Amino acid sequence: MPILYHHKASTASRFIRVCFGEVDFEAELVEENVWEKRPEFLKINPAGTLPVCMTDNNHALCGPHIIAEWLDESFGVFKRDRRLLAEDPFRRAEIRRLMEWFLIKFEHDVARPLVRERVLKLMMPADKGGGAPDPKMLRAGRANIRQHMKYLSWLAGSRAWLAGDRLSYADLAAAAAISMMDYLGEIDWNANPQAKDWYQRVKSRPSFRPILADRIRNLAPVSHYADLDF
Amino acid sequence: MPILYHHKASTASRFIRVCFGEVDFEAELVEENVWEKRPEFLKINPAGTLPVCMTDNNHALCGPHIIAEWLDESFGVFKRDRRLLAEDPFRRAEIRRLMEWFLIKFEHDVARPLVRERVLKLMMPADKGGGAPDPKMLRAGRANIRQHMKYLSWLAGSRAWLAGDRLSYADLAAAAAISMMDYLGEIDWNANPQAKDWYQRVKSRPSFRPILADRIRNLAPVSHYADLDF
Repeated sequence: MPILYHHKASTASRFIRVCFGEVDFEAELVEENVWEKRPEFLKINPAGTLPVCMTDNNHALCGPHIIAEWLDESFGVFKRDRRLLAEDPFRRAEIRRLMEWFLIKFEHDVARPLVRERVLKLMMPADKGGGAPDPKMLRAGRANIRQHMKYLSWLAGSRAWLAGDRLSYADLAAAAAISMMDYLGEIDWNANPQAKDWYQRVKSRPSFRPILADRIRNLAPVSHYADLDF
Repeated sequence: MPILYHHKASTASRFIRVCFGEVDFEAELVEENVWEKRPEFLKINPAGTLPVCMTDNNHALCGPHIIAEWLDESFGVFKRDRRLLAEDPFRRAEIRRLMEWFLIKFEHDVARPLVRERVLKLMMPADKGGGAPDPKMLRAGRANIRQHMKYLSWLAGSRAWLAGDRLSYADLAAAAAISMMDYLGEIDWNANPQAKDWYQRVKSRPSFRPILADRIRNLAPVSHYADLDF
């Protein structure tokens, strides 16, 4: 069976787990602590990033974009109206733009600082960067999340799904990112009702159930985390 | 005619200019100073990044990966053995992995710090971050470039082209990144003969000529910059 190296607190890993669920692709989950820089893992992915999918024929697919493109080429393309990329090149471009928005820009502006300070530093030993959260980083991440939620609300309010009239990778990437922030109680849902309505729809999909069952060691989620009606 | 918003010192912009050259796709070049945060440009690409291709039918394609995928889907796919992505999904994955390596990881570790400190800060007004280079950032970028050159040399020494037996987006992304560092005289070619041999081959392609003709205001390139036999 293929192996997915992932981490529960990694947005990109959550995204790929949901994508796998949507196309019924099964993989064995192996949690990887990237800060340990395990030589065997770096041999598989020299960039040291997550997720990585090791296929049955021993090809390492490194990173969320590459796994998502491969999944679409190999399986998604046969799914017709359940396909997560569009057929039209310009609609594909819009889906990919929003995937990058949430997996690269949101990650850089919001998820990486907040997850690092609030989750990973609790798990890392002091000599690998562990310790107390840096209030400056928390403030920066929290200021950025407000801007990102406005953009997400605007997208959710002006389109049926984020990249157009069908569920796509854009929704799954965004929801994966939001789910991690929601776990940490960082989302102000009252201020963003259109985003809330959209997240409720994504969160209700069977592919999202394993994400809602995630529990990070020593860190309970916010009380509504797994509620479909929050 | 399509418009390509780019910057001469942007690795990702150079990459797309070379890709356009390889598939004979013509676009009008418009230089964009992203630190000015021009509202008209942010309307086209809210992420504020380069390059952006505005097509004839007014679709904005944002960022190097999205433009490269669109170009392949729309034109590259008809180029047979001159196609810059492979047909096999696993070879596509390897090409994309190396594109990301040079456009994201190399950019983060090396190109962004060195270009920002040595080029952009000369152009930016003081209130947008302009000023003298930060020696700490220069040291970090220069330490990282040695590691990246080792990896590039290993790839160049063990394969005909970086991602396999054919020229691909991987070579063009890597050469675009290297060309900017070479302009600044940051590459130790004597220590990396296999990378040098590979770069000589990419540099000699007609698609690379406009890159070698680039001159950045107030900053002359290293003397061998445009030499095909350096």
